[in-house]
Amino acid sequence: MPDSDRQTEPSPIADEACGTFTEDGWFEVQTRVQPHHTDYAGVVWHGSYITWLETARVECLRAIGVGYEDLVRSGCDLPVVDLALRYHRSLGLGDRVSVRTRLEPVRGVRISWIYEVSSPDRAVLYVTGRVTLVTVDRQQGRIVRRLPETLAEAINRLPA
Amino acid sequence: MPDSDRQTEPSPIADEACGTFTEDGWFEVQTRVQPHHTDYAGVVWHGSYITWLETARVECLRAIGVGYEDLVRSGCDLPVVDLALRYHRSLGLGDRVSVRTRLEPVRGVRISWIYEVSSPDRAVLYVTGRVTLVTVDRQQGRIVRRLPETLAEAINRLPA
Amino acid sequence: MPDSDRQTEPSPIADEACGTFTEDGWFEVQTRVQPHHTDYAGVVWHGSYITWLETARVECLRAIGVGYEDLVRSGCDLPVVDLALRYHRSLGLGDRVSVRTRLEPVRGVRISWIYEVSSPDRAVLYVTGRVTLVTVDRQQGRIVRRLPETLAEAINRLPA
Amino acid sequence: MPDSDRQTEPSPIADEACGTFTEDGWFEVQTRVQPHHTDYAGVVWHGSYITWLETARVECLRAIGVGYEDLVRSGCDLPVVDLALRYHRSLGLGDRVSVRTRLEPVRGVRISWIYEVSSPDRAVLYVTGRVTLVTVDRQQGRIVRRLPETLAEAINRLPA
Repeated sequence: MPDSDRQTEPSPIADEACGTFTEDGWFEVQTRVQPHHTDYAGVVWHGSYITWLETARVECLRAIGVGYEDLVRSGCDLPVVDLALRYHRSLGLGDRVSVRTRLEPVRGVRISWIYEVSSPDRAVLYVTGRVTLVTVDRQQGRIVRRLPETLAEAINRLPA
Repeated sequence: MPDSDRQTEPSPIADEACGTFTEDGWFEVQTRVQPHHTDYAGVVWHGSYITWLETARVECLRAIGVGYEDLVRSGCDLPVVDLALRYHRSLGLGDRVSVRTRLEPVRGVRISWIYEVSSPDRAVLYVTGRVTLVTVDRQQGRIVRRLPETLAEAINRLPA
Repeated sequence: MPDSDRQTEPSPIADEACGTFTEDGWFEVQTRVQPHHTDYAGVVWHGSYITWLETARVECLRAIGVGYEDLVRSGCDLPVVDLALRYHRSLGLGDRVSVRTRLEPVRGVRISWIYEVSSPDRAVLYVTGRVTLVTVDRQQGRIVRRLPETLAEAINRLPA
Repeated sequence: MPDSDRQTEPSPIADEACGTFTEDGWFEVQTRVQPHHTDYAGVVWHGSYITWLETARVECLRAIGVGYEDLVRSGCDLPVVDLALRYHRSLGLGDRVSVRTRLEPVRGVRISWIYEVSSPDRAVLYVTGRVTLVTVDRQQGRIVRRLPETLAEAINRLPA
């Protein structure tokens, strides 16, 4: 439990993202519906998607060189301020899922990710949505008007 | 684990809701932030709210005589088709929370609940939002144009 | 989101626990099975119980005057080091639940809570278990040999 | 939402497992700690591990030809009856994780999986444990004395 020496552990794969950019500019992670994602109706509980959306944007940032844990350590946080999801069809136990995200052009302090959750071949669309974050200075608990430089530079590297 | 005789268990409090109607027409449940609701930032993880919103609407229906489990047993389901949340302020470990919901006038097949998550004295507003459900015939997997009668009657009993 | 002035919020009910001591020395919280607790099998997913066990012990400490958030603020943490659960019967959607816990005599650095999860009338036993915690100095990340005084005193006030 | 034609969707990768057998006979899935896995202490909340353990055993079965969703459809369920975990060290945001599982020799109706959760290079051990399941006839809600044939055959194909 005590983790006094966590800092000294080597993390040779810290910059390795799970997910890839598609030819049409999305960042995609794939996953599969496990029992813990489902509810009594035998399909994915509507709140379970939130974890997939988070994983997709965290790994997208990692793919362009920004480890979320490094942002946090540097004193920056990215809380969600807005969440809007539409559920088009339900996903069942064992189904494979593609979770795709892309960044909207950043305006002011709001960073908005749009999402498509579909079958891997994109034939069936399950959920679409948008999640908006702001950058916050952890110490002060205040919204930061300018993105941290590492984040701003990384975002510029994203496919348009 | 085997629950062959679950049906025969008495449930004398099945109609007892946890929550109350406020004078200004909301249904309110109160809860408190536990460790499992929080994330690394020391505040409630944005997805944790979804469970509170669900509890509030399920218990609101129970308070007007509709057990969600009875709806399900009768072949009806109420999947979420739309979710929109705005996060205004963060909630910390141990904070008390009031989760209030009310039904919008039902139009067509869409049942929309609006939400306010605040401190119990309403002085601090944390989250506002809307969650929209439709009624589905579980057997056919199709949206039902008319609400089940017990549900329609109960909704008519709600404060306007 | 920014929560710079969270500290100044009044919290008049911070010492109010949700739960009560029973005549035979358990601390009991009651809850009800919501859709998000269930899985495809229509019963409570085995991991969902963990949240109830946590709530029960956190509220038990609060009932004897120790706010978990205050412990954390004072630099102490109580990570789980051991978890052992037996699932006797399954719990279904809408079922009412009694979650009861009591502390075992503290030996050395280990604080063990034993648990019974049952129907409110105790006629049906669903889950039994034991969860063991240790006290950790958050700054040093090391196990603390002596309980913080407030915690030690509070534990002495627990029914034997 | 309505999913009347879910059955007709092609699932060309239904038999593809995420995870691999190691040379020393474990089945291993790798993952990474996301914000939703953590709690206020900045480390993985003790209940979050349960989802990883489930994914590992479900994907292990898939790797030997048994889709969990097919078992369920055929009327069989595998509820957890016993769970025992020891937490040795904490895992932080962004850390890579190896979750390894193997089946103990099946005795009677109990199917026990043992677990090791460690860093990918196995240098740091975070959690060890055992999860025991039984096979249940979903219709009757009774424990089945004999494993379904597909499951029994698959288990025989597992590395000893």
